[in-house]
Amino acid sequence: MKIYLAGPDVFLPNAIQIGRQKVELCARFGLIGLYPLDNAIDLGAIDASEQIFRGNEAMMNEADAIIANLTPFRGPGADGGTVYELGYMAGHGKLCLGYSNEAALYVDRVRQFTAVTPNDGQLTDAIGMTVEDFGLADNLMIVQSLALHGHAMVTPQQPPADIWQDLSVFEACVRLAATRLPPTS
Amino acid sequence: MKIYLAGPDVFLPNAIQIGRQKVELCARFGLIGLYPLDNAIDLGAIDASEQIFRGNEAMMNEADAIIANLTPFRGPGADGGTVYELGYMAGHGKLCLGYSNEAALYVDRVRQFTAVTPNDGQLTDAIGMTVEDFGLADNLMIVQSLALHGHAMVTPQQPPADIWQDLSVFEACVRLAATRLPPTS
Repeated sequence: MKIYLAGPDVFLPNAIQIGRQKVELCARFGLIGLYPLDNAIDLGAIDASEQIFRGNEAMMNEADAIIANLTPFRGPGADGGTVYELGYMAGHGKLCLGYSNEAALYVDRVRQFTAVTPNDGQLTDAIGMTVEDFGLADNLMIVQSLALHGHAMVTPQQPPADIWQDLSVFEACVRLAATRLPPTS
Repeated sequence: MKIYLAGPDVFLPNAIQIGRQKVELCARFGLIGLYPLDNAIDLGAIDASEQIFRGNEAMMNEADAIIANLTPFRGPGADGGTVYELGYMAGHGKLCLGYSNEAALYVDRVRQFTAVTPNDGQLTDAIGMTVEDFGLADNLMIVQSLALHGHAMVTPQQPPADIWQDLSVFEACVRLAATRLPPTS
């Protein structure tokens, strides 16, 4: 069975190496990892972003499951591209697994970017918009999607030394996938 | 035909009023707007976030299209919950429309949060991760999804005075939806 390996890992300086490690971990459990960077695209082409989109969507259509790296990226929550892909796979009725290497609550992540104050029984940010306070690690749509379309978000018991390189909780997701999906013959 | 009205509008101080305005604009074009806050949930319930998720998912399943407010929210890109919903609707093969009231390029939005420097032919952020530079307003998965599953992201010609209250580009999306979907009898 095939697993789409979503995440901002593709933006890392060692993006290709991390992808290779993830694919190898999948293989160890009898699963085929599909890593977006394996689509060969000419980044200088005028339609490069459309080509990348089409390549990623074809990979998702081919996959039976997604493992999404939802570690917060350039803001309080997960990477937008990865979240889009999680939604796409949930919409397709595929098995949805995801992890974050940062276990902090969403509300505490928001505090790093804007003042959060109690206001009329709710928490609001600096421009008066409500801050979700359900004891979850990210927006409820992301967290509950995993719980209801696959398995609750996997987070580390101890924060890893390097949140972008440590694959322990990724491996935990692969183990979960292997219990749910028949191995590739 | 029914349109799911996604966006961080539900976090606004006047969330209910904005939702009412959006639903009225849809009605003016013969369309039924489904606004997530119309799901009556007890926010104090222990499973409130699961109830909200299930309510929103049921609304999306019922809808023929989505109009997503992708105005950047608490970071360089769109709200994670909204992006998840866009992906979910695309995965379901529904018509995908979206807008942003901020027309700036993603790369320039990122500059407001972290240093962006040229590095080996690409742009990278303060921790060395690649910054997408395709001349798009957000992550390519979001922008290209709209182009390929509905219509290119709608942005204002002139920045509106209030990016959270101005519904001009939302109305443009409703007009687009009306040309694509048969009116409700």
